[in-house]
Amino acid sequence: MTARPIDVLFDPASVAVVGASEDPRKWGNWLAQGALRGEAHRPAYLVNHRASAVLGRPAYRSLQELPAAPELVVVAVPGPAIAATVDAALDVGARALVIISAGAGGEARADHDAELAARVRDAGAVLLGPNCLGVLDSGRRLELVPNPLPAGPIGLISQSGNLALELGLMAAPDGLGFSRFASLGNQADVDATELVEAFAAHDATEVIAVYIEDFRDGRAFARAAAAAVAGGTPVLALAIDTSGAGARAVQSHTGALASDGAAIDAALAAAGVQRVRTPRELVDAAQALLRCTPARGRRVAVLGDGGGHVSIAAAVAASAGLQVPELSERTVAPLRDTLPAAAGVSNPIDLAGAAEQDVHVFDRLALTLLGGGEVDALLVTGYFGGYAEYGAETAAEEVRTAELMGAAATATERPVVTQTMYPHGPAAQALRRAGVPVYESVEQAAWALRVLADGGARRPSATIATLPNPDPPVVGDGYLAARALLAAGGIRFVAHHEVTGVEEAVQAALQIGYPVVLKALGETHKSDAGGVVLNIADEAQLRAAYAQVHDALEPERCTVEQMAPLTAGIELLIGTRWDPRFGPVALAGSGGLYAEILRDTAVRLAPVTEDEAEAMLRALRIAPLLTGARGRPPLDLGAAAGALAALSRVAAAHPEIAELEINPLLVTRDAAIALDARFIKDKERESAVHLHP
Amino acid sequence: MTARPIDVLFDPASVAVVGASEDPRKWGNWLAQGALRGEAHRPAYLVNHRASAVLGRPAYRSLQELPAAPELVVVAVPGPAIAATVDAALDVGARALVIISAGAGGEARADHDAELAARVRDAGAVLLGPNCLGVLDSGRRLELVPNPLPAGPIGLISQSGNLALELGLMAAPDGLGFSRFASLGNQADVDATELVEAFAAHDATEVIAVYIEDFRDGRAFARAAAAAVAGGTPVLALAIDTSGAGARAVQSHTGALASDGAAIDAALAAAGVQRVRTPRELVDAAQALLRCTPARGRRVAVLGDGGGHVSIAAAVAASAGLQVPELSERTVAPLRDTLPAAAGVSNPIDLAGAAEQDVHVFDRLALTLLGGGEVDALLVTGYFGGYAEYGAETAAEEVRTAELMGAAATATERPVVTQTMYPHGPAAQALRRAGVPVYESVEQAAWALRVLADGGARRPSATIATLPNPDPPVVGDGYLAARALLAAGGIRFVAHHEVTGVEEAVQAALQIGYPVVLKALGETHKSDAGGVVLNIADEAQLRAAYAQVHDALEPERCTVEQMAPLTAGIELLIGTRWDPRFGPVALAGSGGLYAEILRDTAVRLAPVTEDEAEAMLRALRIAPLLTGARGRPPLDLGAAAGALAALSRVAAAHPEIAELEINPLLVTRDAAIALDARFIKDKERESAVHLHP
Repeated sequence: MTARPIDVLFDPASVAVVGASEDPRKWGNWLAQGALRGEAHRPAYLVNHRASAVLGRPAYRSLQELPAAPELVVVAVPGPAIAATVDAALDVGARALVIISAGAGGEARADHDAELAARVRDAGAVLLGPNCLGVLDSGRRLELVPNPLPAGPIGLISQSGNLALELGLMAAPDGLGFSRFASLGNQADVDATELVEAFAAHDATEVIAVYIEDFRDGRAFARAAAAAVAGGTPVLALAIDTSGAGARAVQSHTGALASDGAAIDAALAAAGVQRVRTPRELVDAAQALLRCTPARGRRVAVLGDGGGHVSIAAAVAASAGLQVPELSERTVAPLRDTLPAAAGVSNPIDLAGAAEQDVHVFDRLALTLLGGGEVDALLVTGYFGGYAEYGAETAAEEVRTAELMGAAATATERPVVTQTMYPHGPAAQALRRAGVPVYESVEQAAWALRVLADGGARRPSATIATLPNPDPPVVGDGYLAARALLAAGGIRFVAHHEVTGVEEAVQAALQIGYPVVLKALGETHKSDAGGVVLNIADEAQLRAAYAQVHDALEPERCTVEQMAPLTAGIELLIGTRWDPRFGPVALAGSGGLYAEILRDTAVRLAPVTEDEAEAMLRALRIAPLLTGARGRPPLDLGAAAGALAALSRVAAAHPEIAELEINPLLVTRDAAIALDARFIKDKERESAVHLHP
Repeated sequence: MTARPIDVLFDPASVAVVGASEDPRKWGNWLAQGALRGEAHRPAYLVNHRASAVLGRPAYRSLQELPAAPELVVVAVPGPAIAATVDAALDVGARALVIISAGAGGEARADHDAELAARVRDAGAVLLGPNCLGVLDSGRRLELVPNPLPAGPIGLISQSGNLALELGLMAAPDGLGFSRFASLGNQADVDATELVEAFAAHDATEVIAVYIEDFRDGRAFARAAAAAVAGGTPVLALAIDTSGAGARAVQSHTGALASDGAAIDAALAAAGVQRVRTPRELVDAAQALLRCTPARGRRVAVLGDGGGHVSIAAAVAASAGLQVPELSERTVAPLRDTLPAAAGVSNPIDLAGAAEQDVHVFDRLALTLLGGGEVDALLVTGYFGGYAEYGAETAAEEVRTAELMGAAATATERPVVTQTMYPHGPAAQALRRAGVPVYESVEQAAWALRVLADGGARRPSATIATLPNPDPPVVGDGYLAARALLAAGGIRFVAHHEVTGVEEAVQAALQIGYPVVLKALGETHKSDAGGVVLNIADEAQLRAAYAQVHDALEPERCTVEQMAPLTAGIELLIGTRWDPRFGPVALAGSGGLYAEILRDTAVRLAPVTEDEAEAMLRALRIAPLLTGARGRPPLDLGAAAGALAALSRVAAAHPEIAELEINPLLVTRDAAIALDARFIKDKERESAVHLHP
């Protein structure tokens, strides 16, 4: 197969706009205007089946009438005319199409889109859209978008056109803009994955920003993003969880906790993609990644002229997950010698008016603090940028100070990030030119620093595994089937016997040894319904328990199981969920009663290796209980990680299982033992697996 | 005692600036300029002991030479000259002083400040400062500040001058500014509490904003703020925890968890004060509180033109703690009928281009959504403000739409809050005039809405109790002393016997009944050190346990106690800490192993009533385990609340106890039983209590 002509979308030899219009309220007008702005670089043909002229240019009645074949055809005609226009474009040899029109809606859409895409692919062409808001390449002067957008180093892939407009408005005051913009539309042919690949290979794109609602093949997207990141192009994703809270029926703790949003987080983290929540966060993160180097860690020195600003900044930095460490006497002593008595000299550092005398105290301290090796980054906050008010001479020195702060960052290979009350003055502009990001509010600056600190680790952080061929689908339902499946996968359970009557139960208990547990089979939430009796000490208690369970639930079968030493360990929840976009997702969390209440979880794409599983467990808030906190003995973290990895492998081989869960997994000093297990099958996928084994 | 002349600080009949200067780098220059800006309203006398003229005005060599007594004297002379200047000012009859100069530093400061304050008070005058950056009353044209500040309805009390400057720069583009500003300085005489009282009584102040590092008497401050809030003036506090992480040596879980920051939160919440973290949050909250009414609840409709914007806004609103509920068919049906097929019609609501045809869809929907009773507020996000681009006619309609959205908010008594890409255009200005706050980023808008939603409950939320007279100090140390104190206060413990040898232990166990617990006395973290043995079933086990504990710890004494039914309930932590500013603070949290790891806590000023204690428990993440989750039986919440209230009363009567803690408090279906207790005395306060019983 020859390479798909994706790049023709961004640098066509010629462009035709079908549906070009004089009406300034129509897309056909805006796009025709955009095409004409690039006329000096490539022919722009305007097609309108009724007009002989549009926007002062001759208009053509049809694509067939054009004097030469257009490489890129923009389709801005009403929905019903799309198919014929696409055929005509392919007939005259177009290699790329951008379909603005929405086409069919509702359920008809998918079929309609697939049909269009097939036609375009058969012709060796590519299609962006339908329902797409345009395409832009600033370097190539291609502006097929409804509004002008600022040029710059950000490659934007977006499912929303208004968002591109907003990002442009936010980025421009920071001196930023777009290298390329592609509106995704319905992704009938070209999708986000293919565009990420194309943007990663595009020299003028230094950061890729994605606004995405529909990931399609989420693992393919994650792999493309991971490749971009590994190749040196950071990727920012504003990903919306459109499924919404409660939209999905979940039946297990894992189903509830490994939410759609958690699956997106897991995939993006694996790929080394920085997730953002808002346009503001996207632009702020982009500024940081574009202007300076990542930080090697989270230790930050906070520097400013005024106790209020530095105290606030230190608190905000801490709540953003950064550290504001005390500095050693070696660093503090020279500060104490040079700053006023009222200054704060450890960290945060309050100049207490010293900069009013000599603004260069900022660049000297930047060099001292960053060169001292005790911090990974410097956050300058407050009044810097305002010393210009003291007169022209100070204003000039302030700009020079800004340049020297940038030089200090470059020399020490540690970022300086600033927040100033005067973010658009000459000193702020000098900072930006010198590689120092500038923000208006301190929460923006702290967020940017956090991105830079994480950016030190912004490489693909985990394998984005290819899924194994499915195993034969599991036969049966319920606890015993889940137990058998997981035990076969290498997970340790307590001894058990299945019984159908009380005498059988008594015999089983004798074989296992007291104390034992009695479990009724068949109920979904057994422990809530009184179907589990723990700590049965002798035969009399067992008989009583059996009678009680039988009266309450009338189970056909029960199990008698060994009583695990609950107080000798802690209870975890481990499980998987098969996400429609990202495939199997593994979850670890606090187990037992606390599972959904505390929401202390770690989520990754499954299957996970033992090392990845251990990293998940170490990321839990309760990790100190596993690793040995406050003099307590460490528990068997390795066994717990082994169980999680084994469970994740089982899940990855069983696409027919929607949710698979062990709760609790008891972790003791020398073992990890599953005390309960369950799965929920996906009826649709189960059939599919049966049909295509 | 006659009323203190606080208001003279803000509206003096005349002003003298001592230390007035020609040098544009000096405070004496800036303040003299400020005084002269108000010359049309009150005489401004400039005093300089060397110059005969300053800033084109005659200067006086001393206060004694002035033609009339100045009511307010601003002192901007070097530190050593302060005392003499204050004496001179009081001699000539000044009723208020503002001391800019820092005066003494370090340890000398407190004495020096107290001496100054005493002199001023004896003369019946008031003093702001020292180390203060000025005072402003916009209505009275008093501008004794280094930089001009915008006028408006915010009364600002700040320990940082640069912060006032920044808040002014941030507030002005939103059309906001200051009614009054007072720089706190060292609070030698006038403090934040007194200023809050004065601002609450000041008609032109509609919101009070406080930046504070040093609360002094924190309960007095909270009471003043509560009175302001109850009187209809919202209070915003940017409160910094200057003690810093780890600055305080803590010995109990409660000490660690009821941090300085948590104590501030508790006091401000009790007073109904909205805490903010940054200047940006302060201005954004102020805009919301000033422009519109609070929301009655957290249900928000999200409306915009574009799926991206509304999806992002809905997600950000949810993560800000707001609800974006599905709307009923009654509300959705008319939307479905009028909006395009591609529109999102439940919530969030995506107009899908409808506003391009008729921008009034915004005000019509605002009325529909707010009038429908299914939401408490409306968040409009994205492009609104940009329709002006479609031409002059649409621009005029957009402004009219903005006015009608404001009218819809007024008519329904429900707030509309907007985020727009065009926050400074005519439609945005029209929104602001119509009582609709406007924000540039959606996270700001969501934060403002959250403030408005909380604002529905922004009344003093708990008693700010006056502390009882202290009880006689506790005698002794350790578990048994703590247990005796708390048992006397009404808290239930398990049966126990103190023993010094194994035979005594065996006798005790016989009396109590097996199973029992053996505890070594004397160790701080007994359970970590192996000094507690649970679940001892018989005499043989007891003897073994005794030997083991004895070998490990060699305790002089032990207790034998009844074994509580641990699996029949959950373990809480309850405790108190005596905060130097706010007095006793009560804490409830997850107990046992999970206490510090999960940090699931609620904190209030102590003592708390039973109702307040119950509200604290209901605020915990683990509350569902107490109230009965997923079919489990409810536990004895009332008994747990009773224990917490009793503990808080004991603590409030014992200022010599720095930390007092029960961990765990076992809550079962019918009781709350303390299983362990401890206190840590404050040696300094213990002496003080002994001296002043």
